Amino acid sequence: MQIAAQQDKGSKEMNERDGLQGLFLEDLEIGLTASYGKTVTETDIVMFAGITGDNNPVHLNEEFAKTTMFAGRIAHGMLSAGFISTVLGTRLPGPGTIYLSQNLQFKAPVRIGDTVTARVVVREIMPAKKRAILETNCYVGDLCVIAGESTVMVPSRA
Amino acid sequence: MQIAAQQDKGSKEMNERDGLQGLFLEDLEIGLTASYGKTVTETDIVMFAGITGDNNPVHLNEEFAKTTMFAGRIAHGMLSAGFISTVLGTRLPGPGTIYLSQNLQFKAPVRIGDTVTARVVVREIMPAKKRAILETNCYVGDLCVIAGESTVMVPSRA
Repeated sequence: MQIAAQQDKGSKEMNERDGLQGLFLEDLEIGLTASYGKTVTETDIVMFAGITGDNNPVHLNEEFAKTTMFAGRIAHGMLSAGFISTVLGTRLPGPGTIYLSQNLQFKAPVRIGDTVTARVVVREIMPAKKRAILETNCYVGDLCVIAGESTVMVPSRA
Repeated sequence: MQIAAQQDKGSKEMNERDGLQGLFLEDLEIGLTASYGKTVTETDIVMFAGITGDNNPVHLNEEFAKTTMFAGRIAHGMLSAGFISTVLGTRLPGPGTIYLSQNLQFKAPVRIGDTVTARVVVREIMPAKKRAILETNCYVGDLCVIAGESTVMVPSRA
């Protein structure tokens, strides 16, 4: 049976949504937007501190953090910045994209329980260099907590 | 006994190295340098993907990653960028510092087993605004894998 034979080979349907191919440069349009939202938990902060070694007490020591201008523990800024990488690497443009640069302005703190949404918008497409410039902001509700911009290289069908 | 009484109160020695107080603006000098080195492991990449949601196959799928220009899995750029935050938040200037902005140029990939050293150097001090600009580069051996700069607000003794 032909279908069974194809399954045996593990053959791939042309349109299989396997998450291995992102958008091509030709698929991008100015204004095209993608986002990723994640509720920041205490676990995320503890694990981020463990992985990176950033055990700044403003992230881990509630008694200390209460004495600061933040009045309690806040998440690592680079944790929310990681959500930008999630959008770029998995949604827009997605796998195949090469991350060239990122700038970040940390505008407001993120606290345990806040849901951060990273939103990426195509702002400029440079076909000759196969590059795109994207606005990469993170929000908690309507508040922009990180304002940023990134430059990526995007594969071309050509 | 006086010493026992002090211990009972959990009183803090004036010079106790408790990691809760970083440098003040007045302690900074142009050229002052600090660093943090960490060997990037497969575990770091798996956990970073879990925390951020960035499951781009170039980080997690060796068979896919082999077909890319990187010829194998690479670490998330934001993982190495996290080591910069480690230096800023724990060593130079350290706790009390407020992270205002960061820019990052991803210049070369980091692979499992690479030891990344984030090195922070004071480049400019702005006493009136209580700010400092720091060079924030990451190296694998002599190779600069991330070139960056950050702006921080630093508490003043005044």
